[in-house]
Amino acid sequence: MDKIFSTLVSCIRAEEPVAIATVIERSDVTQGQNPSPAELGATMLVSHIRGVQGSLGHEKLDAVVARDVGAALSSGRSVARHYGSAGESRLDDVTVFIDVFAPPPRMIIFGAVDFTAALVKVAKVLGYYVTVCDAREVFATKRRFPDADDVVVAWPHVYLETVADRLGALDAVCVLTHDHKFDIPAIAAALSTNVGYLGAMGSRKTHAERVERLIDAGVEPSRLNEIMAPIGLAIGARTPEETAVAICAEIIARRANADVRSLRDETGPIHLVAS
Amino acid sequence: MDKIFSTLVSCIRAEEPVAIATVIERSDVTQGQNPSPAELGATMLVSHIRGVQGSLGHEKLDAVVARDVGAALSSGRSVARHYGSAGESRLDDVTVFIDVFAPPPRMIIFGAVDFTAALVKVAKVLGYYVTVCDAREVFATKRRFPDADDVVVAWPHVYLETVADRLGALDAVCVLTHDHKFDIPAIAAALSTNVGYLGAMGSRKTHAERVERLIDAGVEPSRLNEIMAPIGLAIGARTPEETAVAICAEIIARRANADVRSLRDETGPIHLVAS
Repeated sequence: MDKIFSTLVSCIRAEEPVAIATVIERSDVTQGQNPSPAELGATMLVSHIRGVQGSLGHEKLDAVVARDVGAALSSGRSVARHYGSAGESRLDDVTVFIDVFAPPPRMIIFGAVDFTAALVKVAKVLGYYVTVCDAREVFATKRRFPDADDVVVAWPHVYLETVADRLGALDAVCVLTHDHKFDIPAIAAALSTNVGYLGAMGSRKTHAERVERLIDAGVEPSRLNEIMAPIGLAIGARTPEETAVAICAEIIARRANADVRSLRDETGPIHLVAS
Repeated sequence: MDKIFSTLVSCIRAEEPVAIATVIERSDVTQGQNPSPAELGATMLVSHIRGVQGSLGHEKLDAVVARDVGAALSSGRSVARHYGSAGESRLDDVTVFIDVFAPPPRMIIFGAVDFTAALVKVAKVLGYYVTVCDAREVFATKRRFPDADDVVVAWPHVYLETVADRLGALDAVCVLTHDHKFDIPAIAAALSTNVGYLGAMGSRKTHAERVERLIDAGVEPSRLNEIMAPIGLAIGARTPEETAVAICAEIIARRANADVRSLRDETGPIHLVAS
């Protein structure tokens, strides 16, 4: 435990994401089933950089928890999970609290439009720290986006400069402004960060125009492929809420390298006719 | 307007979903832009069965609003939308309130597990009336699922019998129990309803066993293809929250007949290794 504690302190000092998993409940004992070797209070540390330290008392449980801690680290959220005595993932014998010491991933949404409110809601379920940014102060209000962590009135590219250093592989920038005046500098600025996902809303025609203007603005043509546009998976989303699911599904799929169809990679209509 | 009102009454009496779109705000007038011919208070009725009646004053605006009303009818939710004077979908000149007279679609989730809470949250963003049902009263509590509309302690197939008549193409049944004892009768019962989406969680191995037992239980082999299992799109979801997005994305895609990859239709691992 001393070693785990000292590693934890080192990780936090170095601003490395780290998580501690602790057995906080064992209902198998009280229910008289085969008890798990997991001990109440047993602790395990997981760091992407420093690996796993400690054990919850059962090899299979350790393996399943280490996988879930990895996912919790990616989302930046502490969470309680339930397992069977040997790590079975849909039983409830052992409760493990996964305490994540890492900033949550960020989603920055440019454009305070109808689609934005729905995207904020789904992004919050996924654990993002969500910022809505729009240069038009009438629209970028906390009242319109009560679920957002921040609502910022600024030109997108100007705001982006203030957070550019902090954006990494788990973060996302979604450009919903649909106005070249705001889009072009915002996308150009996002491409110069390490942000893991960059999506832009609009029709294929709008994006074709956008590509021309981005090149005029000095963006390397080889970088254009990093823009997911039209934004979202090709699931036939129609409403803002459905579009929000399509966007978040695309972000998850890109992060997992899943081979699933994005609107960008097909040529059909964005809005399918419902059956 | 009299004709619209009488059609509205007829639809409601016949329990047909119907919506009324009304122009409730025109900022273009106050801002001195080219005013829209849309009149404040102009009204349009949209019914999937009876078509469109009335006009908001501009042909293109009518067409865009009719499309959005169709989506609102599908989700069962009233909503305010903003348009440009000629129906441009990301401008804010004209505000139209779409008042839906229809029950919201239902999602019934069997199994009060970790994945359930996340699925409830995303389903609520999409406008579902969400019921969580589990036979184990320790787990099926309102406290664990505060966002659910109903939490029911009952055997899944017994509960399903009480609502079977009301399930239609827009509704969804998600079986997350992962226990043949509950799964088999629940899936068999769901297959005898008109529910639009039926998904079941579990590994490919679990589902192969399930299929055998369903056939033993008298399910026609030709019906097995209606079960989306493993549940969700193949986006490499790992956490309950990501899985919830994968499930909702699959429901949207199936409803829209979108050609996008479900876990059911591939053979790879359910949980991909993140990059």
